[in-house]
Amino acid sequence: MSTFGKAFRVTTYGESHCKSVGCIIDGVPPGLALTENDIQVQLTRRRPGQSNLTTPRNEKDRVAIESGCEFGYTLGTPICLTVQNQDQRPHDYTETDFYPRPSHADWTYLQKYGVKASSGGGRSSARETIGRVAGGAVAEKYLSEVYGVEIVAFVSSVGTIDMPTSAEGMSGEQFQKLLATITREQVDQNTVRCPDQETADRMQEEILACSSEKNSTGGIVTCVIRNAPVGLGEPCFDKLEAMLAHAMLSIPATKGFEVGSGFSGTRLKGSEHNDAFEADASGSLRTKTNHSGGIQGGISNGESIYFRVAFKPPATISQDQQTATYAGQDGILAARGRHDPCVVPRAVPIVETMAALTIMDAVMQQNARSATSAKLKPVPAELKGIKPV
Amino acid sequence: MSTFGKAFRVTTYGESHCKSVGCIIDGVPPGLALTENDIQVQLTRRRPGQSNLTTPRNEKDRVAIESGCEFGYTLGTPICLTVQNQDQRPHDYTETDFYPRPSHADWTYLQKYGVKASSGGGRSSARETIGRVAGGAVAEKYLSEVYGVEIVAFVSSVGTIDMPTSAEGMSGEQFQKLLATITREQVDQNTVRCPDQETADRMQEEILACSSEKNSTGGIVTCVIRNAPVGLGEPCFDKLEAMLAHAMLSIPATKGFEVGSGFSGTRLKGSEHNDAFEADASGSLRTKTNHSGGIQGGISNGESIYFRVAFKPPATISQDQQTATYAGQDGILAARGRHDPCVVPRAVPIVETMAALTIMDAVMQQNARSATSAKLKPVPAELKGIKPV
Amino acid sequence: MSTFGKAFRVTTYGESHCKSVGCIIDGVPPGLALTENDIQVQLTRRRPGQSNLTTPRNEKDRVAIESGCEFGYTLGTPICLTVQNQDQRPHDYTETDFYPRPSHADWTYLQKYGVKASSGGGRSSARETIGRVAGGAVAEKYLSEVYGVEIVAFVSSVGTIDMPTSAEGMSGEQFQKLLATITREQVDQNTVRCPDQETADRMQEEILACSSEKNSTGGIVTCVIRNAPVGLGEPCFDKLEAMLAHAMLSIPATKGFEVGSGFSGTRLKGSEHNDAFEADASGSLRTKTNHSGGIQGGISNGESIYFRVAFKPPATISQDQQTATYAGQDGILAARGRHDPCVVPRAVPIVETMAALTIMDAVMQQNARSATSAKLKPVPAELKGIKPV
Amino acid sequence: MSTFGKAFRVTTYGESHCKSVGCIIDGVPPGLALTENDIQVQLTRRRPGQSNLTTPRNEKDRVAIESGCEFGYTLGTPICLTVQNQDQRPHDYTETDFYPRPSHADWTYLQKYGVKASSGGGRSSARETIGRVAGGAVAEKYLSEVYGVEIVAFVSSVGTIDMPTSAEGMSGEQFQKLLATITREQVDQNTVRCPDQETADRMQEEILACSSEKNSTGGIVTCVIRNAPVGLGEPCFDKLEAMLAHAMLSIPATKGFEVGSGFSGTRLKGSEHNDAFEADASGSLRTKTNHSGGIQGGISNGESIYFRVAFKPPATISQDQQTATYAGQDGILAARGRHDPCVVPRAVPIVETMAALTIMDAVMQQNARSATSAKLKPVPAELKGIKPV
Repeated sequence: MSTFGKAFRVTTYGESHCKSVGCIIDGVPPGLALTENDIQVQLTRRRPGQSNLTTPRNEKDRVAIESGCEFGYTLGTPICLTVQNQDQRPHDYTETDFYPRPSHADWTYLQKYGVKASSGGGRSSARETIGRVAGGAVAEKYLSEVYGVEIVAFVSSVGTIDMPTSAEGMSGEQFQKLLATITREQVDQNTVRCPDQETADRMQEEILACSSEKNSTGGIVTCVIRNAPVGLGEPCFDKLEAMLAHAMLSIPATKGFEVGSGFSGTRLKGSEHNDAFEADASGSLRTKTNHSGGIQGGISNGESIYFRVAFKPPATISQDQQTATYAGQDGILAARGRHDPCVVPRAVPIVETMAALTIMDAVMQQNARSATSAKLKPVPAELKGIKPV
Repeated sequence: MSTFGKAFRVTTYGESHCKSVGCIIDGVPPGLALTENDIQVQLTRRRPGQSNLTTPRNEKDRVAIESGCEFGYTLGTPICLTVQNQDQRPHDYTETDFYPRPSHADWTYLQKYGVKASSGGGRSSARETIGRVAGGAVAEKYLSEVYGVEIVAFVSSVGTIDMPTSAEGMSGEQFQKLLATITREQVDQNTVRCPDQETADRMQEEILACSSEKNSTGGIVTCVIRNAPVGLGEPCFDKLEAMLAHAMLSIPATKGFEVGSGFSGTRLKGSEHNDAFEADASGSLRTKTNHSGGIQGGISNGESIYFRVAFKPPATISQDQQTATYAGQDGILAARGRHDPCVVPRAVPIVETMAALTIMDAVMQQNARSATSAKLKPVPAELKGIKPV
Repeated sequence: MSTFGKAFRVTTYGESHCKSVGCIIDGVPPGLALTENDIQVQLTRRRPGQSNLTTPRNEKDRVAIESGCEFGYTLGTPICLTVQNQDQRPHDYTETDFYPRPSHADWTYLQKYGVKASSGGGRSSARETIGRVAGGAVAEKYLSEVYGVEIVAFVSSVGTIDMPTSAEGMSGEQFQKLLATITREQVDQNTVRCPDQETADRMQEEILACSSEKNSTGGIVTCVIRNAPVGLGEPCFDKLEAMLAHAMLSIPATKGFEVGSGFSGTRLKGSEHNDAFEADASGSLRTKTNHSGGIQGGISNGESIYFRVAFKPPATISQDQQTATYAGQDGILAARGRHDPCVVPRAVPIVETMAALTIMDAVMQQNARSATSAKLKPVPAELKGIKPV
Repeated sequence: MSTFGKAFRVTTYGESHCKSVGCIIDGVPPGLALTENDIQVQLTRRRPGQSNLTTPRNEKDRVAIESGCEFGYTLGTPICLTVQNQDQRPHDYTETDFYPRPSHADWTYLQKYGVKASSGGGRSSARETIGRVAGGAVAEKYLSEVYGVEIVAFVSSVGTIDMPTSAEGMSGEQFQKLLATITREQVDQNTVRCPDQETADRMQEEILACSSEKNSTGGIVTCVIRNAPVGLGEPCFDKLEAMLAHAMLSIPATKGFEVGSGFSGTRLKGSEHNDAFEADASGSLRTKTNHSGGIQGGISNGESIYFRVAFKPPATISQDQQTATYAGQDGILAARGRHDPCVVPRAVPIVETMAALTIMDAVMQQNARSATSAKLKPVPAELKGIKPV
């Protein structure tokens, strides 16, 4: 369905040919300072060609706060956010009205809903993500203000071109250093949004090559969440990594998710993979390494949470494709116009958004429990792992 | 929380030191023939050392149907399934009462809940999965009877040992052939549950080596779902791959999920990755290839659904580990007893279970929509992609 | 929260001083013919002074379909409906900024959310109901087209003035005759929306008297749902009467709900109250009487569903009231302006709306079950109450 | 469905002819001291003939805690509670296998589910309420310990016999005095559970008369919740009164719910009905009267919450009834055995249970919000209703 979250709930609406797109956020904590500018930043980063900060801002996709805020503060009531669609013209019949695009959502949407939207794949349009990004910005505002949470995603692979640090796996030392310090400003230094400039240049070439061949390419987005509080995640089914996986695989064109040591961690021995504990200056436990990716037993442990998301090559390409019509007749689909040959640079703020929504919802669910328990008399010390004297 | 699903809802309970473990399944379609034997099969496959079918059956972990069935049929009311725990003795204090096990859930559970269960990680115990497997067996019974759905998982990697077919990626031709025909009987031919016997032998050696070194190793489970109906999945947030990812990452010790072409598909061009359509004998569309993994736009397209799940090496090892106590004191945790050095063989039925629960819930949600729409007058043909004459 | 329903889900937003009010409806069956006119009718009935059909239409509160429809049909994707607010001016400080209105929501909203909206009671504003009414119109369109469902509410009491048929209770013969035939056209014959014209005249006088005394009065709305299908309602917690009660008590200013024989039925003997069965022309069972109000065991039985909803006198009155400020100082609140002395006439379409949303959601939940079960082999006849020969 | 609550979630299972009945409670705050005795008390009050405290205890319906507790404390994991059924014998065919009982759930259950349980109405059995009562006891333990919440229900009407204080309506002065002080001990002084002994005697006679006439009678249960915290309830759809109405109408045999001034309050003027504010000793606001029933704008205001629930006469009576078989043949159903002629005395703890579940869930939902907001910087004073100087 179109709602994400249990306590902090975002419900999105809109497809590419309707009047507007947006969302209602229910369960927003009241008293949060919030203006449209707080939300616009990520929406603007989401638009094509906006990653280079020196580029003049595109004034499209302006968000409006319809409800739930007054005098610059959230009221605790539902916040409706809307962005007008520019182009709602009924279009002429084209080939794509009769050919379902291969590997796009046209055919499955028709099978599922029995009605074909003029945009083909209905809500599988990239414009659907605007509602998410708008909603996620509110979550992020809270998390940043209260916990200093920092969520930074970047492009780590485009096609066969990988950042060099990827070689040792996400839990390798080089990669961990990068994750500890990377900022959005660094990510936005180039339009590819890869923080390694030399790699970014090669990725840029690869994307241009795809474009000139009327082809497309996939890629991988890596994301780190720093300063998330301890105790997030709701086992056994809503473990934090399960909710992150759900969130990420709900983004169009995604095919994979791995957290912490991920797939390459399956090749390690337990003695290599285990993250031993040590006390920090305040006496609280931390882990010496972080193969776990900040989550143990489905619950955040206070270390950085990091993960990777795989995006397939976009299905819409300008090459001729031998395929069949809805009616089952073989033929050649000659797609028209220019299409985005690689979505990962634009996916960066969307990955960040879904991370923010997941963490915010987990925070509120854990607050329900911990605030309720905090009113009880303390349990005996031995039930807290303290050795009786 | 402890409930999975929206229309077909499984709520599990139980940890290792309590009286019993099990689940309540709500939303079961009435009129399904069901006995305890239908459920016991997967529970028995889930137990250690049960994969070789010639092994005498272990009579532990017998399931009881407490409610919701009469005369061998489901009533449509909640089905409660229970399995008694054998060992509920309060235990003596041991080192693990004061040392949180590295990379286990002991410390995060204590942080989240503020109370330490005697089993340490509370619901992160492997016994928690019994409730899931029992619930999933009911889903699978329905899916098999009505649609002929076949769900088969197997071990494709243990540590650094991979099945040879893995080299070309999941959407490669060899792998696809295997996925098209593999059966649970074939999988259970060896205790490692890898259908390639030569690889299975090497995996077995690797696991024994880990065991003798008091160490552990990770691995990968691959799963295929054949004959799932078209139209499953609830965009935009509950896409079928998002629900599968959620389901799989909720299994203890998982670190990654990829569907269809997965991470390796990010390296392909769109022209290579796109699955062109063709009409089958009945005139219905099918795809010529299946890089999509049976899901397009978040909705099943009728092709086989396949995916891989990464399991980290088990955290509990018998080696001494330099770490810290709950109270923050450095020390050496010397784990006692023998522990399972590799969980992937036993994870096979759990992966199948979570797949069945996901598909069953998606079936019922789609039935709500399609049965409701089917009562309306048909929409005009051009809204179904049919060219007006 | 701000979402009603599980399968057909309406999420509303908006308060009186924000830009717009409206809703997102998720889970709408695709292929339903739908235009803004279908929705506008009930919105217009909801506005003050609109009940007399000869009155010129007020062109305010025009609804816009933002998404989810194309070519006049629903797509199955979320439908966003919006209505612009006319007056969003920041207002001058007035007494009501410092005095919480007695029996209004001002004080409890501030206690709950910690932020005072300029409208005082935040979402307790009557404008909040616009989103519901818009959403309910879509539900009603479906129910009417597919099942011929007719939902008609009317005013049966204003203050101490009751319709004469009320005397014998809702399940009395006279009342049942009225419920069997009453139409919205009849209800809208007078502005009070009481179908007994003589009573309506007295009610009208009573309301005018209240108005001239700067006072307010309560009243009761009675509602009947005809032609709802058999089998609706989800025991044990979401029985149909429980969902109706939830729906009705969520309407502002409501204090009570009774279904079928209601409170007066508690005074009957079982032998008087029981609704005996008889076969109708088609051989299907019906009940001879309908004290049950169309619901037995929490499930609709195909007879008319009817219920009453109690509305308290509006809290906002123009009389001086001795009360206290937010800060706890005694004083006199002199409310300004003219206020609606009786809400029940305008509540009529809101009661109908909530009934439609409840029935529609129950239909889709039951369709999920019955369509899923229908694919199974039939159960033996004796499990269907058929005597074995 | 069979789950009640969003944050504190009770899922029940079981019907009268299965092995056991019970529930899983998910979302229990960890660290609550809890033993089986805490739960048994209300289960025992629920059994027939247990209301007089001098009666020897019936040792049936003993509850077992299957999970979620250790060392006498809740762990925060799901608590499964079970009660064994005594009688699971398959029964001989009787007339009720072929006649649906008039006004019972037999026929609607068969229509809805398509399978007839041997008990006829499936989950409409009174034994279904055991799971609720067990779950509610845990909620009540918390509410009592932390807030001193007191929930007391009692019988205020049986058939045509009303407590004298009922005459002036629930918000009358006499009734309010009773609600302020009544205790469960007082309620249990007689088996009818009416705290006015003279009325109780007449009710007792009425029930015995019904019994000897093989008939049944309805009644009304009144309930008060004292010391509930301010701020509970989740507008706009999950207002506290809406959730209470949902909870109460989910109890078998209920036909009506009214809160505060209820139906009789509709006859008052606003100036009579409004509850003016005054400061209490601590400077916090209270209301001078309580026609609102402790809830304003859907949110608790700290005053006592009180309401009435209507129960119809039990459908199962021992008189012959002229009705029809499932197959549509007219005939006489001669019910066998002795049946409970009036359910309201036993309904008392069930009403209390559902009140406790509703309040507990509202507490946890509000804690999620308030604990999350509390971490933000305070909003300006004028947004809190404080006049700027």
